[in-house]
Amino acid sequence: MIKTFVEEQTAAELAELFRALGDTSRIQMLAALVEGEQNVGALAEQAGISESATSHHLRHLRQMRLVRTRKEGRRVFYMLDDEHIAELFRCGLDHVQHG
Amino acid sequence: MIKTFVEEQTAAELAELFRALGDTSRIQMLAALVEGEQNVGALAEQAGISESATSHHLRHLRQMRLVRTRKEGRRVFYMLDDEHIAELFRCGLDHVQHG
Repeated sequence: MIKTFVEEQTAAELAELFRALGDTSRIQMLAALVEGEQNVGALAEQAGISESATSHHLRHLRQMRLVRTRKEGRRVFYMLDDEHIAELFRCGLDHVQHG
Repeated sequence: MIKTFVEEQTAAELAELFRALGDTSRIQMLAALVEGEQNVGALAEQAGISESATSHHLRHLRQMRLVRTRKEGRRVFYMLDDEHIAELFRCGLDHVQHG
């Protein structure tokens, strides 16, 4: 008998997490965020898409707890939610570049 | 001016890698493979899908260089392609479970 290594619910959440990362614009945004916090304008420029499209992606990335925000007066800065995300990004990059 | 942190081609490959992981059955299969090499039957049982569907997923995972095979006579064993994949899986799991 096979042990169930990952609960069905956990597997579904993990798949959803990876799907959220499965977009070139989001990858470009995360690449910038690995370097440090950024505002929407910088992320839009990095991804080569409009600020409106960038905000849309950021909303989804926040819902998935991949990014979080910091407010400074009226200015909003985005950053990676935790170190796991940077690790996830670097592991993927290592695989793609040297795998 | 914003530095381009990741080449467009690399970002696209990375997004494709994450998309390949964005499926619950594949996550179940990878969860089993993190523990060690497995045959198709064991992976099918783990994912709760048919061996035919499992083979289909495995072909795609091999194309993406996420898994590789080892033959022993007529028997075929699947394993993770490299340690990056296990790391990728563990980072994602950490985020989902404790993030």
